[in-house]
Amino acid sequence: MAAVPDGAPGLAPGDRRALAKAITLVESTRPSDRPAARRLVASAAAGSSPAVRIGISGPPGAGKSTLIEALGNHILDMGHRIAVLAVDPTSTVTGGSILGDKTRMVTLARRPEAFVRPSPAGTTLGGVARRTRECIVLCEAYGADVVIVETVGVGQSEVAVAGMTDVFVLLAPPGGGDDLQGIKRGVMELADLVVVTKCDGDLAAAAQRTVADHRAAVRLLARRDLDVMPTVRAVSAVTGEGIAELWQAVMGVHAALEASGALEGRRARQRVAWMWDEVRDALAERVTRTGADVAVLEADVAAGDLTPQDGAMRLVRDAFATPPASGT
Amino acid sequence: MAAVPDGAPGLAPGDRRALAKAITLVESTRPSDRPAARRLVASAAAGSSPAVRIGISGPPGAGKSTLIEALGNHILDMGHRIAVLAVDPTSTVTGGSILGDKTRMVTLARRPEAFVRPSPAGTTLGGVARRTRECIVLCEAYGADVVIVETVGVGQSEVAVAGMTDVFVLLAPPGGGDDLQGIKRGVMELADLVVVTKCDGDLAAAAQRTVADHRAAVRLLARRDLDVMPTVRAVSAVTGEGIAELWQAVMGVHAALEASGALEGRRARQRVAWMWDEVRDALAERVTRTGADVAVLEADVAAGDLTPQDGAMRLVRDAFATPPASGT
Repeated sequence: MAAVPDGAPGLAPGDRRALAKAITLVESTRPSDRPAARRLVASAAAGSSPAVRIGISGPPGAGKSTLIEALGNHILDMGHRIAVLAVDPTSTVTGGSILGDKTRMVTLARRPEAFVRPSPAGTTLGGVARRTRECIVLCEAYGADVVIVETVGVGQSEVAVAGMTDVFVLLAPPGGGDDLQGIKRGVMELADLVVVTKCDGDLAAAAQRTVADHRAAVRLLARRDLDVMPTVRAVSAVTGEGIAELWQAVMGVHAALEASGALEGRRARQRVAWMWDEVRDALAERVTRTGADVAVLEADVAAGDLTPQDGAMRLVRDAFATPPASGT
Repeated sequence: MAAVPDGAPGLAPGDRRALAKAITLVESTRPSDRPAARRLVASAAAGSSPAVRIGISGPPGAGKSTLIEALGNHILDMGHRIAVLAVDPTSTVTGGSILGDKTRMVTLARRPEAFVRPSPAGTTLGGVARRTRECIVLCEAYGADVVIVETVGVGQSEVAVAGMTDVFVLLAPPGGGDDLQGIKRGVMELADLVVVTKCDGDLAAAAQRTVADHRAAVRLLARRDLDVMPTVRAVSAVTGEGIAELWQAVMGVHAALEASGALEGRRARQRVAWMWDEVRDALAERVTRTGADVAVLEADVAAGDLTPQDGAMRLVRDAFATPPASGT
């Protein structure tokens, strides 16, 4: 990675190529890349201020890419510099989705003020999410004042993405009443805004019904301690209807959170959660470094001669018996 | 938890009430319940043999509960004792889904040879998945020779459930070609069987088309090192068509995995993964016990006076500087 020197002066504002290389370094799973990645992130964090960080999620088929393309183009037209990062929780086995990300968001990716990064390949959800936090910092050092983090799914990835963004937007496709089954209480409670997509053509009437369903659900589920009461709106990425209003709504939520102090509260909690994730990683890494017994223990546990619980107990004991390496 | 004495003789075969109480103890988030839970699981593991462990997953709307009810009733009719456990990755904020699990699988839950446990409330996915492993062991001690673990989602929860079961079944609703978008490569590769649901009435033709789509996808995605080549079939939980054949297919996969030695390979890898999860938990718990500085560090990180990375480094150093407590 000679193009990104230690200390990372390579991350010049507006240099998309340098940003892409920096993200590649940070996402690298090679342990030897980690020290340089860590320095790069630290230097990026020191020299930049937070963007408006937006999490966008929704079940498969909700039209996330199309919506983000329409919204992103509008945000660019409003004079912002935007970065879009994707977190794909399904890429745990071989990485990559069936249809791939290459052909997505083409008009957005083509504009010089936009930076679009498809899903990273491989590694676990926890890993992807942790690196995504670092990638947000890199995008901010690059000069993005709006960062969108996109994720798919109905579970843990939304929690992870909501835990690293300022405003969380939940997309829902138009559908019958039982479509609400796809959006569970836990995820609904993360949403600052609910957006029903594809409100055009044949689906316009269904979309309006779905808005009503979601309004009822939000009313039912809203807790008194919410930072903002979520609103529900319909948009069409095809006709552009509702896109400008959606952006206004996002900025409105952001401004309200900032004014009430809730934004700083969110970011404070996010920093602490980030710290604990780093702790867990460092500890797990430390145990794997304790030495030769690990392979034997694994073999015994694999063979069923030792229970997983007893094997774990021995590993933890060994880790604490070994003096820590310097710099860990 | 006086009803479940230490050492767990309370888990008599066929005693559903004792099993329900044992699972409640194991799922308890109170640290003081952990030692008794650990003893209970150890004693259950020592006195039982593994059931046929089946993971069933699919996107929201695939008809998981209905299918499991139909399949479960058939399995009971074949003379087995069955337990159904649900893992709900969306219950991270307050726990529970909008529609709840209480009214699901009523005919199955009513039969005395069946044990049905809805999603545990609260806690994280990792936590739920870890406890689910322990719950499987409890179900086996109770005498279940078939354990079904159900999960929803398109991401991490399938990976977790596939990592604790023998045979992984992926459900897909009937739909147009773009419905394959909902099933990403990583999840598809976990599947030993793909089942298109709702093959009845209006949807029968669409279901057959979806079978063809999935067969093409499986052919496209199949790796040479798969333990079994996944097959795709259509079922109707309403008419019962394909249910008996599905059960035969599941048992066929299980027998083939057993004959080739792949089943023991899967279980060996699962035991090792379980050990590492236990290690991570034990270490994280250890760090939180190191003492008074944690609150100060958290406050500094929350305020932005200390980076998450630097805070993590200090916590890890403290953990290794403190002598371990006995029994950790």
